[in-house]
Amino acid sequence: MKKITNTLFLILLFTGTGLISIAQTHPNLILTKEGVEKIRKNLGTVPMFDQVLATIKAEVDAEIEIGIKVPIPKDMAGGYTHERHKKNWFILQKAGNLYQITGDQKYAEYIRQSLLAYAKMFPTLPKHPTDRSYATGKIFWQCLNDANWLVYVSQAYDAVYDFMPKSERDFVEKDLFRPLAEWISTENPQFYNRVHNHSTWGNAAVGMIGLVMNDEALIQRALYGLKNDGLDNTMVDNDGGFIKVEGQNKAGFFAQLDYSFSPDGHFTEGPYYLRYAMTPFLLFAKSLANNRPDLKIYEYRNGILEKSIYSLLYETDTKGRFFPINDSQKGMSWNSREVVAAVDIAYLDFGNDPTLLSIAEKQGKVTLDVAGFKTAADIEKGLAKPFKHRSIAYNDGADGKHGGLGIIRTESADGGEICVVSKYAAHGMGHGHFDKLSYALYDEQGEVIQDYGAARWVNIDQKGGGRYLKENQSFAKQTIAHNALAVNETSHYQGKVKAAEASHPDQYFFDAKNPDIQAVSAKENNAYEGVKIHRTFVLLKDESFRNPILIDVLKVTSEKENQYDLPTWFQGHLLAASFDYARQMTSMTTLGQGHGYQHIWKEADGMSAGEPTQVTWFTPQTIGSGEVEGKIFTLTTSAIPNDELILGRAGASDPTFNLRPDPVFIQRRKATNSVFASVVESHGSYDPVSEIPISPFPSMESVKVLLDSEAYTVVQITHESGKTWTLAIANIDASEARNHQVTIEKEIFEWKGPYILK
Amino acid sequence: MKKITNTLFLILLFTGTGLISIAQTHPNLILTKEGVEKIRKNLGTVPMFDQVLATIKAEVDAEIEIGIKVPIPKDMAGGYTHERHKKNWFILQKAGNLYQITGDQKYAEYIRQSLLAYAKMFPTLPKHPTDRSYATGKIFWQCLNDANWLVYVSQAYDAVYDFMPKSERDFVEKDLFRPLAEWISTENPQFYNRVHNHSTWGNAAVGMIGLVMNDEALIQRALYGLKNDGLDNTMVDNDGGFIKVEGQNKAGFFAQLDYSFSPDGHFTEGPYYLRYAMTPFLLFAKSLANNRPDLKIYEYRNGILEKSIYSLLYETDTKGRFFPINDSQKGMSWNSREVVAAVDIAYLDFGNDPTLLSIAEKQGKVTLDVAGFKTAADIEKGLAKPFKHRSIAYNDGADGKHGGLGIIRTESADGGEICVVSKYAAHGMGHGHFDKLSYALYDEQGEVIQDYGAARWVNIDQKGGGRYLKENQSFAKQTIAHNALAVNETSHYQGKVKAAEASHPDQYFFDAKNPDIQAVSAKENNAYEGVKIHRTFVLLKDESFRNPILIDVLKVTSEKENQYDLPTWFQGHLLAASFDYARQMTSMTTLGQGHGYQHIWKEADGMSAGEPTQVTWFTPQTIGSGEVEGKIFTLTTSAIPNDELILGRAGASDPTFNLRPDPVFIQRRKATNSVFASVVESHGSYDPVSEIPISPFPSMESVKVLLDSEAYTVVQITHESGKTWTLAIANIDASEARNHQVTIEKEIFEWKGPYILK
Repeated sequence: MKKITNTLFLILLFTGTGLISIAQTHPNLILTKEGVEKIRKNLGTVPMFDQVLATIKAEVDAEIEIGIKVPIPKDMAGGYTHERHKKNWFILQKAGNLYQITGDQKYAEYIRQSLLAYAKMFPTLPKHPTDRSYATGKIFWQCLNDANWLVYVSQAYDAVYDFMPKSERDFVEKDLFRPLAEWISTENPQFYNRVHNHSTWGNAAVGMIGLVMNDEALIQRALYGLKNDGLDNTMVDNDGGFIKVEGQNKAGFFAQLDYSFSPDGHFTEGPYYLRYAMTPFLLFAKSLANNRPDLKIYEYRNGILEKSIYSLLYETDTKGRFFPINDSQKGMSWNSREVVAAVDIAYLDFGNDPTLLSIAEKQGKVTLDVAGFKTAADIEKGLAKPFKHRSIAYNDGADGKHGGLGIIRTESADGGEICVVSKYAAHGMGHGHFDKLSYALYDEQGEVIQDYGAARWVNIDQKGGGRYLKENQSFAKQTIAHNALAVNETSHYQGKVKAAEASHPDQYFFDAKNPDIQAVSAKENNAYEGVKIHRTFVLLKDESFRNPILIDVLKVTSEKENQYDLPTWFQGHLLAASFDYARQMTSMTTLGQGHGYQHIWKEADGMSAGEPTQVTWFTPQTIGSGEVEGKIFTLTTSAIPNDELILGRAGASDPTFNLRPDPVFIQRRKATNSVFASVVESHGSYDPVSEIPISPFPSMESVKVLLDSEAYTVVQITHESGKTWTLAIANIDASEARNHQVTIEKEIFEWKGPYILK
Repeated sequence: MKKITNTLFLILLFTGTGLISIAQTHPNLILTKEGVEKIRKNLGTVPMFDQVLATIKAEVDAEIEIGIKVPIPKDMAGGYTHERHKKNWFILQKAGNLYQITGDQKYAEYIRQSLLAYAKMFPTLPKHPTDRSYATGKIFWQCLNDANWLVYVSQAYDAVYDFMPKSERDFVEKDLFRPLAEWISTENPQFYNRVHNHSTWGNAAVGMIGLVMNDEALIQRALYGLKNDGLDNTMVDNDGGFIKVEGQNKAGFFAQLDYSFSPDGHFTEGPYYLRYAMTPFLLFAKSLANNRPDLKIYEYRNGILEKSIYSLLYETDTKGRFFPINDSQKGMSWNSREVVAAVDIAYLDFGNDPTLLSIAEKQGKVTLDVAGFKTAADIEKGLAKPFKHRSIAYNDGADGKHGGLGIIRTESADGGEICVVSKYAAHGMGHGHFDKLSYALYDEQGEVIQDYGAARWVNIDQKGGGRYLKENQSFAKQTIAHNALAVNETSHYQGKVKAAEASHPDQYFFDAKNPDIQAVSAKENNAYEGVKIHRTFVLLKDESFRNPILIDVLKVTSEKENQYDLPTWFQGHLLAASFDYARQMTSMTTLGQGHGYQHIWKEADGMSAGEPTQVTWFTPQTIGSGEVEGKIFTLTTSAIPNDELILGRAGASDPTFNLRPDPVFIQRRKATNSVFASVVESHGSYDPVSEIPISPFPSMESVKVLLDSEAYTVVQITHESGKTWTLAIANIDASEARNHQVTIEKEIFEWKGPYILK
């Protein structure tokens, strides 16, 4: 308390231009007097920033022209009142920055009038009439959006604080800001007092308005949560996530920082939600850095905020689109406004990493503040250096011991990339999917083998009001919807969140030292009772192959016989399969009854006759000018006689066409212990302008399991030239120093460490 | 004959640099001595051309490094011997140009050795062992490819004619060129003596090698065909096209020019095939222009070749992709090598149209000859002007009286475009589809309502050897696969080519004078006995709508009751439908038994309860940087009670996954006389980065048929604002001067001309 009070005194600063005095006054959240000075002085010298200023000015001017609209709240997301109030928060925040930067009082006046209108309306508002959220808001259907509003409007209020007479400030604080802060905290503890991205917004909102109003009680509540929330352990939110997690008794912003990230910055819900959560983390942190330097918020947990921004950037494909693990809408990318802000703040406050400038260049915009100004100015100076994706293993869980996400990626010959995302993470809370040891494969254009993402069309009213669709639960979260092993037509942990949250897979090893041979391996022992799964992915770059290939070895151990289904959700159109299959010609039924199977049309099935078992598909990819070029991929598996080979398509049991009709290949086997070994290669290409297929056939001849014991699994792959590679995995001891030896057909095979490929 | 002989004398030319003498010698086909001189002198001054030279040099050098490969022919397209001989023809032609331009004898030597190898092999060749074509070749599975080979290799031979000793020339002419020319002409008259794009290649091949060898008999055969071909009228080719067309008794190159195009340059098979046919037309024409100026080939039929090139360019979407009418592989565009050559020749020889340079810029390459050089040099000089697509009506048939293709297009507010392609053309011979009065809708990104194109993966061996698939006949050609009216589950003309070729729809009117209201209207009276169809499309640009809207009025007349099915093959994912429908949840069957219906899964159906009947879909569109942005479209129809409303998807009865699983909406009505009126609007957009839907709901409230009589059809459309437009069509008299008057609910409605919209 003492330290905080100190910062309210006048501070004397010596700068190059002389001695000036700065009062701890407004703006003091994201903008500061000093920062505003700097921007004003340099207007006209940084084209990218000037462009942003002009664009935002035009946008806000148009809104001022239309006039202030503060309708009585009534709609769900997508509806008029929701979208209008949402627009207001953005416009008000922008107007505040415009007022500070341009000095034009029309922006301050617009904010003032808006705040008065909100303050006049707010006391009349009951709980939002929709009442469909676990935490219904006042201005919006959920407290979350009320908190969003407050995070942005706090900034607007900060910008015009000195402009408004004290009597009006008292009015808006008493009738709008304080009661709203109470609504989203003390009156909705189930929203406010969690470790969850929703609550981070709540904490930041309360903290930021607290900073503007210099209300120490609100600031403390933001940092440390509510003392007594009276919440019990069985409450769930609208996504089915538990409000309370056992062992986590803290709340507030510091608790979010403690529990939301792994020690290396991974966010357990995945990058789509981290992107969303990032805004309150960074805006509140920045506000605290400006106002409470004693908290050393940027250094907290060894710089967890900086790490989290980099995790966001590394968990993307080459075009910056987030890997859509857990509930994620496809296509969300580092071009989103949240990441624009994160990159600019990271550049300004975390050491001026020049590779961040190249991302800002791709984003093509910056924030209208000091961070954005510095970023734009340094791009203008030519300081940008290319951002390089790299192989990286992220641990999951606050303690970093709850599995993780292994990303291995390698450049292909023509400047492209092959990237494997191996997911052995903890269950992503309410947004988690039952996809232990699943993976997705990318090339430089995008998905080759996809993670379906969420069954949701965010903000599209026609699709269930833009909220999660029921097929998100019944399909997208289920195991069979992923490239993961489903046992006995049941999802992992029987599809139960509580059980899934109580456990997690473990990384077995991760090796990215040699760019030509990289590997990631993980184990899952709890998803099914009595079943252990161990999966290893290796990327091999070798001149025999046009592009690096993926080797996938999935070992399953069980004393009793099970039905194993291993799906491959390939992106594209089936070109050929090496086995005979019977296509359903005039009628078609679903693959099963539940656990997602009811959503898959069984289009065709066949029986493996043995090696080689191959599925080849064509993936159209749109390139720069809008032309379509396609690539040709082949999966070669170690299918054994009597494996059932199924071709299916999503979209059954889907009364309102919520699912994409995506294709899947499923390898089905009845066995106890077994190994599924396969290779995916990107071998061919075709574009409809030249009409010349380049290398349309796979170069992989076969994939064979040579040995499988408790201790060792050995797989051999054979190239059409006859050249072979052998992948040997030590299943029990992953230590680097350990020597291993197996004998296969009288030949002795020796290596050191958890695996070898040669 | 006298004139032709004259050109063999020496010609004296006076140029700026002095008096030089040019003998009528080699090269004399596409390249000429004079042209080569000009290129040589200016090497290094035109970067685009130098780049092309460097690229082709690298490509040919790599092939010279590998060594000459002339395998004994045995494979189908896609197989090794096919692809190798195909590669040879391109490499030999390029090597010839390189020899002429660089003077490096290694290129001449490579050609010489190759020709000797071919000449050594050729006499040993039987008919190609595949024997699967109506005209089997020697080097390839079909004569067509033998002719392709000869068109290119003639140029190579021309380039090295003076380099090779006479004894070797005699050898290759006697053992290779002459017998090959005979094979594709006298020995396969069913290939050579047709009016067909295949035969154009044959004619050009025979003519071009004739010009190089100065063999007047071959030249005459190329120009005028075989005198007696002994062909009968019932023969068909592999595509089911008739070899002989009644009333066409001419053959040879002039006959191709006479009968292949309408008087305004439209090609009855459509632009995909015109692109393919263009090469022999232009290469042989260019050779004739260089060698037989007396023929005035470029002026023939009022400059039909120039017109045909422009028809190729105008029958494309904004990205230059051909409208895929008839058998066309999607994605083929003006970036193809054939159009690169066509644009360069057109620029050089048809008046230096500066808008062609902007297309050449987009193509990013030019031909390695004088035309390419001139094009690149003028781009370098900054002479390029934008090429503008425009509304245009092409007539079909050699006499221009066999219907046509009406293209109306208008700019949308944000620099985009809405384009309607209305097809009322003659049947496209063996490649024709039964799609009378069908249409397709485009915006600036591509297809909104698609023409399926062909069921074929050209050159992809895994899909039926890259040839037409049987689903091309059973689905892609059928009426229900198009946005065309299918009556009683039967295709137009019962799917019979001979009947379809004997008739054609007729244009009723075309009006593109006012860019804000454009219309095209056509009638089809013969596709079904006793059924007359009249369809009118109007594009309306008005500030009430975000983008121009399409109004579609289909009037069908029949004394007896029929089942009418009007499909809309929308591109994208169904967002919403205004009517109740029952989706097939756990099993699904086909829509019908034949005429393409057996290939459509019936996914859902519902019943119209009256106005408004709307279907809204989301079309993801990939933009520049690889990001996906989507648009939202709505079809609003005048469905009446008891219309059955069906949602379906292609892909049934398709044993090897040859069809794309594309969605369709089908409006089904049982009636005698009836009108289907509808509006398609592009009203919304959504991108997954901002997650903000812009205008996701249609602004069209209803579409109503106010009046339908033999003489008049009047449709009213109502905007959500209450604003209405009335479209009145005079069904009998399309004259501009005629006054019309109808009374609707006691209101008198008057206009002049075939239609009015107000």
